[in-house]
Amino acid sequence: MATVHQSNGHGEAAAANGKSNGHAAANGKSNGHGEAAAANGNSNGHAAANGKSNGHGEAAAANGKSNGHAAAVADWNFAGGKDGILARTGAKNSIRAIRYKISASVEESGPRPVLPLAHGDPSVFPAFRTAVEAEDAVAAALRTGQFSCYAAGVGLPAARSAVAEHLSQGVPYKLSADDIFLTAGGTQAIEVIIPVLAQTVGANILLPRPGYPNYEARAAFNKLEVRHFDLIPEKGWEIDIDSLESIADKNTTAMLIINPNNPCGSVYSYEHLAKVAEVARKLGILVIADEVYGKLVLGSAPFIPMGVFGHIAPVLSIGSLSKSWIVPGWRLGWVAVYDPTKILEETKVSTSITNYLNVSTDPATFVQAALPQILENTKEDFFKRIIGLLKESSEICYREIKENKYITCPHKPEGSMFVMVKLNLHLLEEIHDDIDFCCKLAKQESVILCPGSVLGMENWARITFACVPSSLEDGLERIKSFCQRNKKKNSINGC
Amino acid sequence: MATVHQSNGHGEAAAANGKSNGHAAANGKSNGHGEAAAANGNSNGHAAANGKSNGHGEAAAANGKSNGHAAAVADWNFAGGKDGILARTGAKNSIRAIRYKISASVEESGPRPVLPLAHGDPSVFPAFRTAVEAEDAVAAALRTGQFSCYAAGVGLPAARSAVAEHLSQGVPYKLSADDIFLTAGGTQAIEVIIPVLAQTVGANILLPRPGYPNYEARAAFNKLEVRHFDLIPEKGWEIDIDSLESIADKNTTAMLIINPNNPCGSVYSYEHLAKVAEVARKLGILVIADEVYGKLVLGSAPFIPMGVFGHIAPVLSIGSLSKSWIVPGWRLGWVAVYDPTKILEETKVSTSITNYLNVSTDPATFVQAALPQILENTKEDFFKRIIGLLKESSEICYREIKENKYITCPHKPEGSMFVMVKLNLHLLEEIHDDIDFCCKLAKQESVILCPGSVLGMENWARITFACVPSSLEDGLERIKSFCQRNKKKNSINGC
Repeated sequence: MATVHQSNGHGEAAAANGKSNGHAAANGKSNGHGEAAAANGNSNGHAAANGKSNGHGEAAAANGKSNGHAAAVADWNFAGGKDGILARTGAKNSIRAIRYKISASVEESGPRPVLPLAHGDPSVFPAFRTAVEAEDAVAAALRTGQFSCYAAGVGLPAARSAVAEHLSQGVPYKLSADDIFLTAGGTQAIEVIIPVLAQTVGANILLPRPGYPNYEARAAFNKLEVRHFDLIPEKGWEIDIDSLESIADKNTTAMLIINPNNPCGSVYSYEHLAKVAEVARKLGILVIADEVYGKLVLGSAPFIPMGVFGHIAPVLSIGSLSKSWIVPGWRLGWVAVYDPTKILEETKVSTSITNYLNVSTDPATFVQAALPQILENTKEDFFKRIIGLLKESSEICYREIKENKYITCPHKPEGSMFVMVKLNLHLLEEIHDDIDFCCKLAKQESVILCPGSVLGMENWARITFACVPSSLEDGLERIKSFCQRNKKKNSINGC
Repeated sequence: MATVHQSNGHGEAAAANGKSNGHAAANGKSNGHGEAAAANGNSNGHAAANGKSNGHGEAAAANGKSNGHAAAVADWNFAGGKDGILARTGAKNSIRAIRYKISASVEESGPRPVLPLAHGDPSVFPAFRTAVEAEDAVAAALRTGQFSCYAAGVGLPAARSAVAEHLSQGVPYKLSADDIFLTAGGTQAIEVIIPVLAQTVGANILLPRPGYPNYEARAAFNKLEVRHFDLIPEKGWEIDIDSLESIADKNTTAMLIINPNNPCGSVYSYEHLAKVAEVARKLGILVIADEVYGKLVLGSAPFIPMGVFGHIAPVLSIGSLSKSWIVPGWRLGWVAVYDPTKILEETKVSTSITNYLNVSTDPATFVQAALPQILENTKEDFFKRIIGLLKESSEICYREIKENKYITCPHKPEGSMFVMVKLNLHLLEEIHDDIDFCCKLAKQESVILCPGSVLGMENWARITFACVPSSLEDGLERIKSFCQRNKKKNSINGC
């Protein structure tokens, strides 16, 4: 396996291992990008069962039986599921799956460390370690021994109250504990919201392009129709309100806004959010506001919670410790219901969320128990430090990209951990699309980017700047080398 | 709020708070059992918004707007969702929801502590505290700072390997890391397995009665048809194989066996499990084996993993730290694929699980990271102690129930944390059904039981014996007092 740049490297190590354990392979079966992925797809993680690598006699014997048995697969009633939506999903609408696939292209014998610039998780870098107050609070809650129990489905009351108080600071009304539903990260918040919206017969929802594909994946699982509106790169990735209105109809129940934006790095103005709220009211839809990057604002434009406009159109806001505290692996997030006019209560959206959570998994109880201390005790210095690091790296990122004519960044990032870049493929030789670009970059340079097509923007790529400057500079330098090595022969000048 | 028997009491406190935060109320709207619940349903947790209890001027104003706005609810396109499956779910198929509802019947001014005998979570009792090695391993993983990152969707490789090695001890072949999918508790394992099975068009699955209602709830969410087979109380709650065969057809894709059994406390023999495997093969279905209570065997009959029969019919086994290590709040479980003949691989069941997990939440990474140490270092003494406690309390439970003629236990518990008892309602005055029994018991005696109807057995109840002896004896004594107080006037003798 290729080495990893950081001393601990669990983020990318996990991905690299995803490759060796056969599941990246399973996800990569249908692509044909990169020989390494294909080779891995063939070996498929069941080498052990074939007796090749560990000599388990029983497994080999069992496999012998399997070969004899293969003809009988159709005899099993569940065999039809192999053409089902989950069997066919995979890299198409999962950032993780595409990341494992791209990572599988890395040359294992490569001399250089792998640079993971695909996903927003700088926790592997010591400089980005979470606040000591937060870690202490979780350790203390664990050590009491009193929070190994189940919590209520909607979360521990004290933790809900603490989030309500925390979020009330940003809006002109008070949230109560009942307005907060704790979830196992922002990911579970999406898992909850989508089926709640899918209850309305024939419903559709409006999602941004580019966006975050877990929404599309969950909508597909719940047979909820998705329609896409565009974000406009030339206007700081603002929502194209006209295009949004034109695709909505009476079956449209919700729209999504991600602010600060993933994958574009933009931070929306008060005026733009007010327009969004007005159009939502006009269309009769609620607003899902994915605000997991709420604290990560790098420029002068402040973050405005969508809940400020909750009296115009009701808002389900998704928040999380993951990004702001740099602890995605702690799995603690929430849905906050901004519903001052009680529309979501009367339409039983809140009841539906409660009912769904009562038959769902939860965040670890001791992490929930630590939440009041985490929110109260984390010092401003921590956020200043993290934002300082991100601001520095975002500037390096934007500057280096500007110096590379083979990729174009239309808007300087102002928040979150990402920037979207257009791949100028017409200047490159035999690079067919964004996935091809990313696979070859991984193979030749051991740099992992997130291809834009999984985010809805073909021939773009998402780069994270949530990285220490030395690694980021190294990564951007390698991208430049890659582009120059693969430039079209008739291209007149390099960059 | 009523006091709780234990010094920390987070298990029941959470439930009690569920009541005061309005969500139990939301779930309890349609029942009419118990005035307290009804009263709570009316106050509905939004008292604050009405300005009654905390004087938030803005919220009160917002509510004033809401009243004016109510007529306009129908203008919102998502209003149709209020008749949806999630809005209507609730106490009917959620142990949590019914527990919150029953708890809401407790007299708040009652002098005695609430005794939570409804759910299997003894972690609130100091005697049941988890192994120090387990707690140390989690604390150490957290403190490294290296496991705040995202893990791979299927879990950390080292943790998957450790579970594979752990489970391989029980079967005549070797599991590999690829056969293990880490989940956020057994609950998330159900969340994953059901949609994977729902992929087969027109599929149905066979679930036991009595059973565990999260399966039914998740099947309903995924539009997967459920058919029930019976467990036979007189035969140690064995599966009625004839009834199972009679309800299966070519669209039947899977059956569920829970062993050691929740809610019945039985442990199935090798011979019975072999019969189950043979009928599964005959029907062409896979076996979901819910084995979360695998280590909690109290009698002489050993626990046999269903995977032992994996060569006859493939098995998806659900396991967890929750019950055996008494840490349900840590949220760490797994799906183990026992598939020596590679049927589940060829039919893409494993691929589907991978794809689903790639767009789902995960167990906390640092808990995953601790798993190898937890599995390796937990001393046998810990399990001996826990099983000793459970054995003692199960005997108290069975003995006390036998001395109460108003409830009948057909089979002495041999494992898990539960026993099912038949409520002899014909001997009781004006107690209409199991929910009525449990609500009145909660109101009069502050004892919480789980009504059988939520488990598929009307007029039965589930009692947990996972409790310290003094509390259990107190609880069973109160149940006896309750029955005697409510016995039919023409009943000739007491118990």
